[in-house]
Amino acid sequence: MPRNGKFFTLAALAFLTLPAWSGTHPSMPDVLAASAPADWRPLDPNNTLYVELAGGRVVIELAPGFAPLHVANIKALTRARYFDALSIVRVQDNYVVQWGDPDNRRALPAGIGKLAPEFDTPTVRKMPFTRLPDGDVYAPEVGFSDGFPVARSPALHRTWLAHCYGMVGVGRDLDVQSGSGAELYVVIGHAPRHLDRNVALVGRVVQGMELLSALPRGGAAMGFYAQSETPIPIKSVRLAAEVAAAQRSNLEVIRTDSATFAALIESRRNRPEEFFKVPAGHIELCNVPIAVREASKAP
Amino acid sequence: MPRNGKFFTLAALAFLTLPAWSGTHPSMPDVLAASAPADWRPLDPNNTLYVELAGGRVVIELAPGFAPLHVANIKALTRARYFDALSIVRVQDNYVVQWGDPDNRRALPAGIGKLAPEFDTPTVRKMPFTRLPDGDVYAPEVGFSDGFPVARSPALHRTWLAHCYGMVGVGRDLDVQSGSGAELYVVIGHAPRHLDRNVALVGRVVQGMELLSALPRGGAAMGFYAQSETPIPIKSVRLAAEVAAAQRSNLEVIRTDSATFAALIESRRNRPEEFFKVPAGHIELCNVPIAVREASKAP
Repeated sequence: MPRNGKFFTLAALAFLTLPAWSGTHPSMPDVLAASAPADWRPLDPNNTLYVELAGGRVVIELAPGFAPLHVANIKALTRARYFDALSIVRVQDNYVVQWGDPDNRRALPAGIGKLAPEFDTPTVRKMPFTRLPDGDVYAPEVGFSDGFPVARSPALHRTWLAHCYGMVGVGRDLDVQSGSGAELYVVIGHAPRHLDRNVALVGRVVQGMELLSALPRGGAAMGFYAQSETPIPIKSVRLAAEVAAAQRSNLEVIRTDSATFAALIESRRNRPEEFFKVPAGHIELCNVPIAVREASKAP
Repeated sequence: MPRNGKFFTLAALAFLTLPAWSGTHPSMPDVLAASAPADWRPLDPNNTLYVELAGGRVVIELAPGFAPLHVANIKALTRARYFDALSIVRVQDNYVVQWGDPDNRRALPAGIGKLAPEFDTPTVRKMPFTRLPDGDVYAPEVGFSDGFPVARSPALHRTWLAHCYGMVGVGRDLDVQSGSGAELYVVIGHAPRHLDRNVALVGRVVQGMELLSALPRGGAAMGFYAQSETPIPIKSVRLAAEVAAAQRSNLEVIRTDSATFAALIESRRNRPEEFFKVPAGHIELCNVPIAVREASKAP
């Protein structure tokens, strides 16, 4: 909480319920408070990764619908304990955190190799798509699909995950067929959308971003840690399904095809809080919060 | 440098010169290497702030052309040593770092008070404006003016600084006339453009962003540090003009009305590096790097 009135500033007001400038719609806290249980879906334990660091747990929701081969590899690598005791080796300001095995200390498990690119996917009828009508600098259409920010091209009949803050991608070499999932990065800065359709995105951090984004930046080129710096150890990576129920992070993500999510978007497109004097009128894809909450305990 | 070929990934390639996919234009390093001295301008010591932290110096270029009253206040506060030994009190992930005097330990110096809003400014003929033709979700027109990212509305005849990564703004209360410059924030996440025209932006961090963006996030609401957490001390804030020449950070900023800057934009709009298989074709305002470099020593 702000410690006094003077600090009632900036974003502070984005999270307080105050008289609206328009009076026509609720604030984001109001929208979330009024949501129904059906507006939320639990994370699938078979598509949820826990990256355990000294500072705590980073929870990643995987997106097998967009990168099935890469997600399968990542799950196999996880089950083989490939990532355990590897390190975060790169933290580049306003760009990415990246982990893997740069010194090739360990071989990839049997059956895990480089993959065909999954940089975008055919747009098919069954694919959920809640369009954001506000426009986009990079793509003809943007919106949300099953809780992920996406872009698509009607002309190309292709859809792809968008490089918003917190999105998780697969490092690769120059060859488009050189990614395996054995090295992953997370976006920690202004959305590097130029990477869209050039790498395979595989998921999104839904909790624990600050454990990555506040890490010391690397002092070598491109944010790699220099020899004199200490890479950040990864204690373990587990699928939620491998973890005892009592140790799981029971999170729910807002359904992006719900009326509640549409109301959330409007609460952020034109903020009703009194602090805001000039409504933005529009919202950019990566500024839409895809809300996550602790699941309520089973009754 | 990447430690082996496997780590030749992602952004790595954004900074290497490799055969172009189009062959039609140079990469950003090529553009900068080919620049002429006249493509750069030095920082004005009378409009440059040094925020000294334990970790080093954050250099801010002030923008008196956009917020003359607020910049004058900030300079007066600096000369009065108002900021010295205050603290960074708020670090909210993907949003802002903020400093000031939340406990009102010290009074504002005589003559320094709340100011009329300077959230935007009339668009005048003499104002430099290099338009970015790529479009924008938030404003009718965007571009660059004297080294700052700006937006403008021809219909309103108004221009304003845009909330890109690294921009510096003035905290205020609900009243638009409640900002003084005594509390400042810096954007450390995806551009919160909804703040445009709602607060006074006063400058941009041109060096040392990582000293702010990697700070521990605050555990209380809105990223304020909780009682159990330690705010980050500010050793001092000085105008460069107050600092002996030998202790100054001698930086130059690219001239945003130069042909070199136009080439830089194109090098980032459609990256020629071999890593990129699908050119973005467009670039968003806050993804354009406004290059800064160490000034060469006087001959």
